[in-house]
Amino acid sequence: MLIIGELINTSRKAIREAVEARNAEYIQEVAKQQAAAGANYLDVNCGTMIGQEIECMKWLVETVQEVTDLPLCIDSPDEGALRAGLSLAKNGQPMINSITAEEKRYNAVIPLVKEYKAKIVALCIEDAGMPETAEDRLRIATNLVQAMEKEGIAQDDIYLDPLIKPLSTNDKYGKSVLDAIMLIKKQFPAVHLTCGLSNISYGLPNRAVLNRLFVVQTMTAGMDGYILNPTDKAMMGIVYASMALLGQDRYCSKYLKAHRKGLYE
Amino acid sequence: MLIIGELINTSRKAIREAVEARNAEYIQEVAKQQAAAGANYLDVNCGTMIGQEIECMKWLVETVQEVTDLPLCIDSPDEGALRAGLSLAKNGQPMINSITAEEKRYNAVIPLVKEYKAKIVALCIEDAGMPETAEDRLRIATNLVQAMEKEGIAQDDIYLDPLIKPLSTNDKYGKSVLDAIMLIKKQFPAVHLTCGLSNISYGLPNRAVLNRLFVVQTMTAGMDGYILNPTDKAMMGIVYASMALLGQDRYCSKYLKAHRKGLYE
Repeated sequence: MLIIGELINTSRKAIREAVEARNAEYIQEVAKQQAAAGANYLDVNCGTMIGQEIECMKWLVETVQEVTDLPLCIDSPDEGALRAGLSLAKNGQPMINSITAEEKRYNAVIPLVKEYKAKIVALCIEDAGMPETAEDRLRIATNLVQAMEKEGIAQDDIYLDPLIKPLSTNDKYGKSVLDAIMLIKKQFPAVHLTCGLSNISYGLPNRAVLNRLFVVQTMTAGMDGYILNPTDKAMMGIVYASMALLGQDRYCSKYLKAHRKGLYE
Repeated sequence: MLIIGELINTSRKAIREAVEARNAEYIQEVAKQQAAAGANYLDVNCGTMIGQEIECMKWLVETVQEVTDLPLCIDSPDEGALRAGLSLAKNGQPMINSITAEEKRYNAVIPLVKEYKAKIVALCIEDAGMPETAEDRLRIATNLVQAMEKEGIAQDDIYLDPLIKPLSTNDKYGKSVLDAIMLIKKQFPAVHLTCGLSNISYGLPNRAVLNRLFVVQTMTAGMDGYILNPTDKAMMGIVYASMALLGQDRYCSKYLKAHRKGLYE
């Protein structure tokens, strides 16, 4: 299980203000909190800082690395911002968030994956658009995995994101993702699967409940990476309990540790 | 999804006392509460009333049927008690809880299933004992389904219980049940799967959390029946949310109704 801490993102107001003010202390506090809560990677995204994304990315990467040894997930649709972050990332194997099967984006990002020997989040999006069915996702995933393998990228470094769409717009959108995960894992057992969760519950009440249960469902189907807020105790408690029930936690020791840390109170 | 309300069971102290005092009002209140909360069947079990099980079963069945049209799940390991309950059950198709692949019990219960055209809960237990692996469960399930089909019992009337054992005694016991569900559904798509949940969490902290998440996991694997307490709002909220995410709730209407009823507060 790979937990990618999502909090350092300038789409969040407090982070944007801290980046604008170059308030290193605040950013470092958020980094430390996510590390303490169990994150394995820290996502760094300053895509909203239009015209300044490259400088902000450099500052963020250096600022975060002053206080943690966790590897970073450099998050941008922009090739320049990715390169800026990757060139400074020094904590273990970096991760790139993200590539897609869109020709232009694929060709721009693939050299970075190779040059920095990075793990790569690969979104199931192609030039024809977003996937609708499980089979669409399998087809796009197959194209991505096969193309990346030709470039010498190991399946173990690939984190496919099946692309989650709101259940409120189609009541089969959860099921199609679950089916896609099982199809992809069957086809490519060494590939990993990840996602951001919040889209699933968009437009419905009790979003946190739906997001948490969709973690449990997608884990059951075979997903093993999440971009989430690791300081959300209820969410992390669910992840550890679900791992225990899935036989992914020897002697339930992580679950019992989570219990002692008060994640179920 | 079939929810079997579990509360009318003399292993619960308040029910035992009500049965001993022939307090019909209390039993009927529990029946009505479970019906209002969304149960599809009401389980009736007085197995702890040793030497009086048959009279108690008769009284319970008549008492419950005075206030509800829900069909009953007649629950006993004893052939005589099953017959006593079934002979009085008049609300739709009754259910029998349970048969096993143990020769003696199988031969005692199968005539009742046929005579009363009942739905049948079939536990994956055989004369050699309890199953250990997913493959054990598939083998016992296959024997049960094939034997019952020869007796003219439809797959749609069979609710296989894969038999849940405590995760605290083996950290693969959750996974082996999930794998078994998928294997059984692949082999017998028309068969249903059910279970009682509480064994999974025996000996671990935060049992309610584990029980609820195991509902979500087993539903994801294909289980579609649960013997549980339908007046547990958190549990029922989880069932409805999970159904919505699995594409089993058209326009998410049951989920939205559960929200309006306050199941997520």
